[in-house]
Amino acid sequence: MNYKLLGKILGKIMILEGILMIAPLVVSLVYKEFQKSTVVSHGIGGVGAEYGGIKYVLAFLIPIVILVVVGFLLQIPKPKRTSLYQKEGFALVALVWIVMALFGAIPFVINGDIPNYIDACFEITSGFTTTGASVIDDITAISHSSLFWRSFSHWIGGMGILVFVLIFIPESKDGSAMHLLRAESPGPQVGKIVSKMRATARILYLIYLGLSVIEFLVLAIGPLIKYNDPNIAEIVSSKDKLFHALLTTFGSAGTGGFGFIPNSMEYFTPFAQYAIAIFLLLFGCNFSLYFLILIGKIKDVLRSEELKTYVVMVVVAIGIVFTSLLANGTLVTSQDTPLTWEESFRHALFQVASIITTTGFSTQDFNLWPQIAKVVLVILMFTGAMAGSTAGGIKTSRIVIAFKGIYIKIRKLLNPRYVPKSKFEGKSLEEKTTNDVFAFITLYLFIILGVIFVLSFDGHGFFSDFSATLACISNIGPGFDAVGPYSSFSDYNYLSKIILTLTMLVGRLEILPVLILFSPRTWKRR
Amino acid sequence: MNYKLLGKILGKIMILEGILMIAPLVVSLVYKEFQKSTVVSHGIGGVGAEYGGIKYVLAFLIPIVILVVVGFLLQIPKPKRTSLYQKEGFALVALVWIVMALFGAIPFVINGDIPNYIDACFEITSGFTTTGASVIDDITAISHSSLFWRSFSHWIGGMGILVFVLIFIPESKDGSAMHLLRAESPGPQVGKIVSKMRATARILYLIYLGLSVIEFLVLAIGPLIKYNDPNIAEIVSSKDKLFHALLTTFGSAGTGGFGFIPNSMEYFTPFAQYAIAIFLLLFGCNFSLYFLILIGKIKDVLRSEELKTYVVMVVVAIGIVFTSLLANGTLVTSQDTPLTWEESFRHALFQVASIITTTGFSTQDFNLWPQIAKVVLVILMFTGAMAGSTAGGIKTSRIVIAFKGIYIKIRKLLNPRYVPKSKFEGKSLEEKTTNDVFAFITLYLFIILGVIFVLSFDGHGFFSDFSATLACISNIGPGFDAVGPYSSFSDYNYLSKIILTLTMLVGRLEILPVLILFSPRTWKRR
Repeated sequence: MNYKLLGKILGKIMILEGILMIAPLVVSLVYKEFQKSTVVSHGIGGVGAEYGGIKYVLAFLIPIVILVVVGFLLQIPKPKRTSLYQKEGFALVALVWIVMALFGAIPFVINGDIPNYIDACFEITSGFTTTGASVIDDITAISHSSLFWRSFSHWIGGMGILVFVLIFIPESKDGSAMHLLRAESPGPQVGKIVSKMRATARILYLIYLGLSVIEFLVLAIGPLIKYNDPNIAEIVSSKDKLFHALLTTFGSAGTGGFGFIPNSMEYFTPFAQYAIAIFLLLFGCNFSLYFLILIGKIKDVLRSEELKTYVVMVVVAIGIVFTSLLANGTLVTSQDTPLTWEESFRHALFQVASIITTTGFSTQDFNLWPQIAKVVLVILMFTGAMAGSTAGGIKTSRIVIAFKGIYIKIRKLLNPRYVPKSKFEGKSLEEKTTNDVFAFITLYLFIILGVIFVLSFDGHGFFSDFSATLACISNIGPGFDAVGPYSSFSDYNYLSKIILTLTMLVGRLEILPVLILFSPRTWKRR
Repeated sequence: MNYKLLGKILGKIMILEGILMIAPLVVSLVYKEFQKSTVVSHGIGGVGAEYGGIKYVLAFLIPIVILVVVGFLLQIPKPKRTSLYQKEGFALVALVWIVMALFGAIPFVINGDIPNYIDACFEITSGFTTTGASVIDDITAISHSSLFWRSFSHWIGGMGILVFVLIFIPESKDGSAMHLLRAESPGPQVGKIVSKMRATARILYLIYLGLSVIEFLVLAIGPLIKYNDPNIAEIVSSKDKLFHALLTTFGSAGTGGFGFIPNSMEYFTPFAQYAIAIFLLLFGCNFSLYFLILIGKIKDVLRSEELKTYVVMVVVAIGIVFTSLLANGTLVTSQDTPLTWEESFRHALFQVASIITTTGFSTQDFNLWPQIAKVVLVILMFTGAMAGSTAGGIKTSRIVIAFKGIYIKIRKLLNPRYVPKSKFEGKSLEEKTTNDVFAFITLYLFIILGVIFVLSFDGHGFFSDFSATLACISNIGPGFDAVGPYSSFSDYNYLSKIILTLTMLVGRLEILPVLILFSPRTWKRR
């Protein structure tokens, strides 16, 4: 282990996190949270409960100071070797995400919005991994700065923390950077868009930033939330509209899904619901497709098998959910009036977009929906959207490759001399690729079963535990029953929360980095 | 397609089925069912409702005649080629099982015990595949001959229909027989015990028969059922004890699980419950281990990795279930008195043995058990027992290989020059084997998701549908909730029942033969 180099890179990440935390600090100052009185029902027991409004400022100031100071100290030792082995790269990636979470959780504890540190770690890991599962029961009791930090963490985590760092650290000649990028998102579709890794990272981030800005403008200009709805009129202010548009953009660009007003997006206007659904689907596309569009290779985009599969899945899923909502009339709402055609379509579109991109926003309590709609959502929770997007899950490309691989296996079994001619995205599909995909899916299943097993000691019913596990490993957020879209994860005990926190990391980093980090072999000296 | 040879072998199977049906016919005559009056509540609507007791005799006589006559007619055409291609072998195996089911269902319809033909096909497929899922709501209304035929079908299906046939058909030199045997049970652990296929089949059947006879004697001599229990005293007669011992033996040897008195094995004596549990675990072992014992190679048996894993799984599972039953006291029974230590242990042992061997007998309504116990059972429903046994599921050997394969993949990722030295059962573990296992598990998961999807149109709740699917593909029988051990599959609609019937076949034949049978490519002329 090249501890010095590891420390150096970790230090850089810490400084970066410190800089990023300035944003919520500014939010806290803009909203004059330092003037708040201490009596916040939720804040009892928080470290800073007796410090008055100033705790909201300290909540970010203290970790910023720690992060920057420690970060700089870690720059001092000079590593002998300036490159990383593959193994070290993997371990580093997992470590980076864990360190980000451990420090990122501190503000919630200091300002008392989430007094327990384990809960706070769950929440911020859910943020960085773009899961969107929350332990907060009363979202209206949370400060603006905390709401901002959670949603901002979605946006940061969406593209990958290391992709971001790659823009800044010098590129070594031996491909260490590639190791890192692969480790952070090792889907079959991640490759260099342009020859230089750093240039690739920059292009990806520019596309990400560009799409985010466009979404923000659309949401900021159009009608966003029904501020006059009697259910929220007294607790959600239209003065915060730009703030809400920003948080919505963070949550959808990162395909995260943290809500910031009651009932997720139930009280958003139909315009906003349509707009968000469309942006979610866009953020679920492989970003290299946007690059291809930018350089005019539209034909290559249209030829993408993964894109075609993704579109077909979305359309079929919307069709089934839409039909089931129409057919079941009033049964699917908490209101007395049945859903209209338009409402059924909108909710179907929104929920399919939200789940396939593993975001987790909701416009309705889909727990009440017919079972066929729920099963469609469960299947989408497994698949997720395209590789190379901000979404989680197994990824469309792996699903396509798995089906092709099964076809090849059967043909070979029938005729041992059969030479497969299968292709994926124009390149011939190598056996190693299909086998890696099979292994990945097998491991996915084993981990899900293992986590359900641990959760069941603290069981909230099989479907709750199953969907909680799936929602965490696929980075979705809400599941069904006890962890449905209008509930939270707060009822799980701390062991379960720690396991689910790790599950989110396992899902976001596509399993291997986390496994490698916790393998004793990784830490043996050589 | 070598239709003539296919027909010839199918014809032999039909004659065999006709001969096997003589047994229930004899049962019917022994119990003098021909003297019964027609007024059987369950029989209304059955084809033979108005024929009086004679329908019980005709129920078997008619299909016997058809089977034998058609079977002999199919022997007339002389095939030009006397061997089968691999593809034809696979298709044949699936076809054999389907034909067995289609004819095996006829008696239930004629005697009116299961008036609907789709229901009857579900029931007998569940029998032959050793699943044990039933559509019968009132087991006390079923005739002795039908009860016998269902349970007998478990015993026939347990070892595989074709293994049985192999004893009789001449062995060709090109290995067709091996193709067939592989297709019927293609687990990684099926190999020739001795050089001649037919000799292998004979040895397997002798072991099977021997173990069955021992179990029957134990159950026939010891106390079997609490015939004086007020809940069953009026409906279950102690005069039938030998009959009950026989049906129990059929159900446990084949790891099938059809019950024949109310509440599965709740009213069996503790002695019988212990005995059955032990025999179940024995039938869940790879039969080649018994062969090794017979020829004195005890050391090889003790060295078997699959056996060790199986034992560890059983012990750990019993430990967890036992503890959870003790800890939850009265909550887990429908009675007021808490379970004693002995009862908790017995039920834990029995249920773990019954589920890991994919039998499905139960001594308690495990639907009421704590969630952790249920999740342990769900995990065992995936794994199943050892390959080369009568049990279903993914099989212990595949689980072991998958874990080893994942380990190898990770090591290779960390160090591309890593040369795996992994072994399984003393032989070096080839990459092709692990990859086949990954592909198998992936396909297992996809099929489960697909079947849940179809079932959810007729949804009985996610956990019911999930467990129903798992119970069918792993050939267990009962699942949870709506298909729990004290319920039946009768509430599903006919589309769902047909899908579940196919799922049982897919599970029993380990997926591929059924896929190949329904692939258009198989039937193309060449």
